[in-house]
Amino acid sequence: MTGQSFTEACRTVRPVDGAAATAGAEYQDRLTKPRGSLGRLEDIGIRLCAIAGSCPPPVPAPVTVAVFAGDHGVVAEGVTPWPQEVTAQMVANFCAGGAAINVLARHAGAEVVIVDVGVATPIPTDSDVLVRRNVGPGTRNLAVEPAMTGEQARAALDVGVDVARRAVSAGARMLVTGDMGIGNTTSAAALIAACTGRRPEDVTGRGTGIDDATLVHKRAVIEQALSRVPLDSGPLVVLAELGGFEIAALCGFVVAGASARVPVVVDGVIAAAASLVAAAFVPEVVGYLVVGHRSSEPGSSAVLEELGLSPVLDLDMRLGEGTGAALAVPIVQAAAKILAEMATFDSAGVSDKADSAG
Amino acid sequence: MTGQSFTEACRTVRPVDGAAATAGAEYQDRLTKPRGSLGRLEDIGIRLCAIAGSCPPPVPAPVTVAVFAGDHGVVAEGVTPWPQEVTAQMVANFCAGGAAINVLARHAGAEVVIVDVGVATPIPTDSDVLVRRNVGPGTRNLAVEPAMTGEQARAALDVGVDVARRAVSAGARMLVTGDMGIGNTTSAAALIAACTGRRPEDVTGRGTGIDDATLVHKRAVIEQALSRVPLDSGPLVVLAELGGFEIAALCGFVVAGASARVPVVVDGVIAAAASLVAAAFVPEVVGYLVVGHRSSEPGSSAVLEELGLSPVLDLDMRLGEGTGAALAVPIVQAAAKILAEMATFDSAGVSDKADSAG
Repeated sequence: MTGQSFTEACRTVRPVDGAAATAGAEYQDRLTKPRGSLGRLEDIGIRLCAIAGSCPPPVPAPVTVAVFAGDHGVVAEGVTPWPQEVTAQMVANFCAGGAAINVLARHAGAEVVIVDVGVATPIPTDSDVLVRRNVGPGTRNLAVEPAMTGEQARAALDVGVDVARRAVSAGARMLVTGDMGIGNTTSAAALIAACTGRRPEDVTGRGTGIDDATLVHKRAVIEQALSRVPLDSGPLVVLAELGGFEIAALCGFVVAGASARVPVVVDGVIAAAASLVAAAFVPEVVGYLVVGHRSSEPGSSAVLEELGLSPVLDLDMRLGEGTGAALAVPIVQAAAKILAEMATFDSAGVSDKADSAG
Repeated sequence: MTGQSFTEACRTVRPVDGAAATAGAEYQDRLTKPRGSLGRLEDIGIRLCAIAGSCPPPVPAPVTVAVFAGDHGVVAEGVTPWPQEVTAQMVANFCAGGAAINVLARHAGAEVVIVDVGVATPIPTDSDVLVRRNVGPGTRNLAVEPAMTGEQARAALDVGVDVARRAVSAGARMLVTGDMGIGNTTSAAALIAACTGRRPEDVTGRGTGIDDATLVHKRAVIEQALSRVPLDSGPLVVLAELGGFEIAALCGFVVAGASARVPVVVDGVIAAAASLVAAAFVPEVVGYLVVGHRSSEPGSSAVLEELGLSPVLDLDMRLGEGTGAALAVPIVQAAAKILAEMATFDSAGVSDKADSAG
């Protein structure tokens, strides 16, 4: 059993609308352009049709970026050179509007919601922008024991559901995943290895920047953690054992977005790990995901392959916070406008090769 | 000698500012993010510093997209299934605001200027939006004779310079290349082969969509045209022999943008060919280019490699019109805002790993 809110969100995810996707694909071919010539922008438009259940789809706006912040006990293993206090300091930076995600969200016309779901140290801000939903002062060290209790994991899942529901109630028609947590690429890599059966060395990267020796150690830490998790564990057990508060919240956020039938733009490797766990709870969520970018972290590519998704952007980014996803927002919206605003061959009086060849 | 206007534009292109680029790179490392974690978005920001000669660079707006339209005599060879009248019909569609470039430019907040620089058939519009600078009723068939006279090529280069100068005078701080011309991927591939020494089969694609037999024929047509052009020909001769009116205008547009020290966002294979010719006239223009996307046309990748540039987007697009470049505009602007708006480690009170490791 999971928390009431998350359980109900899972129960209410419906498959995306295949008929609307077909209508979208057919309509793309009537627009004044050679068939398929807008490439993957056409695919994104078709996906938005399937999510909305209509062609053309509504332009997905307003947009809310939710940045979930949490700390990780695994930093005790020395998997990152950054002090744990940076999580709290960066949360204050988000609240002040000075971080990369603030800049990119403003640029995209998106609102930013900052949620403390498990920061370990005092957050140096008195901003009332911060949503305080702290489930615990950082997770335990996943190298040696479960990161969270089942109860904590459920509580964090519920926080994510609640944040998504409030955003959609307030008018959001597209959700963007964001995260902050020193040490969280270790947790994400462990989750991705556990959910895909891939080896730690294939899904573990340098995170925010570590040297060769630390990378070898990071992989060993993940290996050790994985050895504790039975292969046939369900997603809640895997999440509690290897996850983080912010990753669990993101998982709930993704499922609730799908339940509300809005597109969810997935950021880098942290959001990818959360999406993978969400798909293990409810496979139908995958239809609601638009992957904003391919992170340079190898786990990102592993999840894209596992879920059969292509990213909008591929710019060697690895910051997190939701930055790659926020940067993709204008392109996702453009895909909807192509279907909503372009002239057809008939309406514009342009000769269609397909017609004239007949 | 080229036209007065183009010659002067060439003469006034200065190298980009290396000191500003260095300042941009150093400033990126002071912002509240791990070094290099915004990947190629950081590179774009540094490039904007070099172009503007300042760090942070101004946000490149307003933006003007110029769509140059021209016809190609080589359509007589059967290199495309689209009737030549589609060029004029699409120009009317641009004027009415119903084409993909109109949708994507509106979305990016960019103005669209439509220029008839060599359309062969009557344009079915009485729109006063259209800039009428027709140099000739389509080029001659480049398979059997020079596409343009030297005088025509010079006139088309001057049209491009004039359009760029007017846009910048009217306030544009970023220019986007657009094109329309049935048959123009044949001309672009021929130019790219001539300028890079690559074989026609390595740079020729299916354009707006042709079958295998037509592709083989298209390559043979290009081979035949290339056999007429001496290897040591200068860029004006190559352009006149193998180019098109809209490609020559784009070449002038690119050089004039560089002369005005504004970033020029390059679209697909047509703009890439024009940029390659521009770089042959004035190598310094390359520093002012931001490649909006990698087209699925192989000539696009060949030019990127030749000029040492990476595209912003890679979405399998091949429409032209400026669509891929227009779609990249928000990302280019975001790169400037990162430098202009993000907090530094010092200003935000965030611990810098590089500092704390000391």
